[in-house]
Amino acid sequence: MDRFSLNSATTKHWPLPDLVAGCVRAGVTRVGLWREDLADRGPAGTAALLRDAGLRVTSLCRGGFFTAPDWYDDNRRAIEEAAAIGAPELVLVSGGLPAGSRDLDAARDHVTEAIGRLVPDALAAGVRLAVEPLHPMFASDRCVVSTLGQALDIAENFPAAAVGVVVDTYHVWWDPDVWRQIARAVDRISCFQLADWITPLPAGVLLGRGLPGTGQVELARFAAAVDAAGYTGPVEVEVFHEEVWARPGGEVLAEAIAGYRAAMSG
Amino acid sequence: MDRFSLNSATTKHWPLPDLVAGCVRAGVTRVGLWREDLADRGPAGTAALLRDAGLRVTSLCRGGFFTAPDWYDDNRRAIEEAAAIGAPELVLVSGGLPAGSRDLDAARDHVTEAIGRLVPDALAAGVRLAVEPLHPMFASDRCVVSTLGQALDIAENFPAAAVGVVVDTYHVWWDPDVWRQIARAVDRISCFQLADWITPLPAGVLLGRGLPGTGQVELARFAAAVDAAGYTGPVEVEVFHEEVWARPGGEVLAEAIAGYRAAMSG
Repeated sequence: MDRFSLNSATTKHWPLPDLVAGCVRAGVTRVGLWREDLADRGPAGTAALLRDAGLRVTSLCRGGFFTAPDWYDDNRRAIEEAAAIGAPELVLVSGGLPAGSRDLDAARDHVTEAIGRLVPDALAAGVRLAVEPLHPMFASDRCVVSTLGQALDIAENFPAAAVGVVVDTYHVWWDPDVWRQIARAVDRISCFQLADWITPLPAGVLLGRGLPGTGQVELARFAAAVDAAGYTGPVEVEVFHEEVWARPGGEVLAEAIAGYRAAMSG
Repeated sequence: MDRFSLNSATTKHWPLPDLVAGCVRAGVTRVGLWREDLADRGPAGTAALLRDAGLRVTSLCRGGFFTAPDWYDDNRRAIEEAAAIGAPELVLVSGGLPAGSRDLDAARDHVTEAIGRLVPDALAAGVRLAVEPLHPMFASDRCVVSTLGQALDIAENFPAAAVGVVVDTYHVWWDPDVWRQIARAVDRISCFQLADWITPLPAGVLLGRGLPGTGQVELARFAAAVDAAGYTGPVEVEVFHEEVWARPGGEVLAEAIAGYRAAMSG
């Protein structure tokens, strides 16, 4: 259980103090947070809440969206927030195509340039930028980084202490090249996230992720692959699904832990 | 216009005799058909209807679905039907994971084995098996062949006269490796299909394809790439969308032609 981390998006409607208490009750010591989780009490207040409960933050979601006009300032703020709550990794979701554009290559090149501009800030703050490839169905509107290979191509332009990658089973499970890319990733793996692939996909496709074990992904094979690559860090369960959100947080947490245990025990 | 082909799925509710007449009126000489188009008058009757109108068939959809218990017999029938209507290419959509399985590698291996069993029938009938990679969002329930590279890996086990690949812009547009794979494809390209990527995706995601020019794909770049690879065959417009289906066939055909012309003229 020392590697399990509850990503707060999985229990979206569970207020942070309740989530913290629920984690303590369940013996969970790590959480992945989103920037909106810091809104009520600010980074310092959030850090105090977590510290008092003995919880550590595994990652902060999210920076990125490099198509936004204020992307540079906003990502600098995200780096500061990650540092303030002790999150070692800031997850970057790159953003899709700029409005009216069809130039995917240019959008992808811009991601590398933007990350390059943020690297000095990240190194200074002691926060690693974690490039997350999203499933190709998000390429136009959410993330032009579509494969783990692409994410590694971007990351390898920079020191491993500055830029890593996220391995989220939901986004990469279909990729015939993913096993080779995980082996290549070694010390670039910033975070390993478990979510399952279930069909049919809902309209808009964002909220179709399933709790681990409910879908069709070989989760244990992924857990073994990141282990074999040398990854010893946290394993976040991160699910977005309206039906999961409608259920009590503690119940969802228990299922997330069960799914994690099944995946990790092969 | 000698390369344009209307795939009948684009005008799903247009009865075949009306579609044939509409094509003749619009100066269209080629159509891509689906097996259900042959239901009313059989392969011979359909062939006669097309021949009398001076139309040629560019492809028949579809074989594949190798997870079905009767896949072998069903695919042999599909090959016979393609031969009977003069379709030089039979499009194969492989099928997803078998029920209850998470073993994507095994499912993919089975596709190659199944195609190998069908190759003698295809060669004897003079029909090429056209492996279509579908977008990775269909990997679990519809098609475990997710990239053009994978489709070519499968095809290259067999003679180019027996097994080719489909390049459908909707399915492959996101792939950073697709340009290299198109260049590799050369005489393996069985069919080039135009459809555009539009968001948000509808529930179930199957019926989200847009008419060429309405979305975010660099269609002209794809047209130039298949040309550069040496492809001189038909260019099918194949769109599945409830709103497109609800409109008069002739109107949709006119837009399909306009989208084709825009893509082909760069």
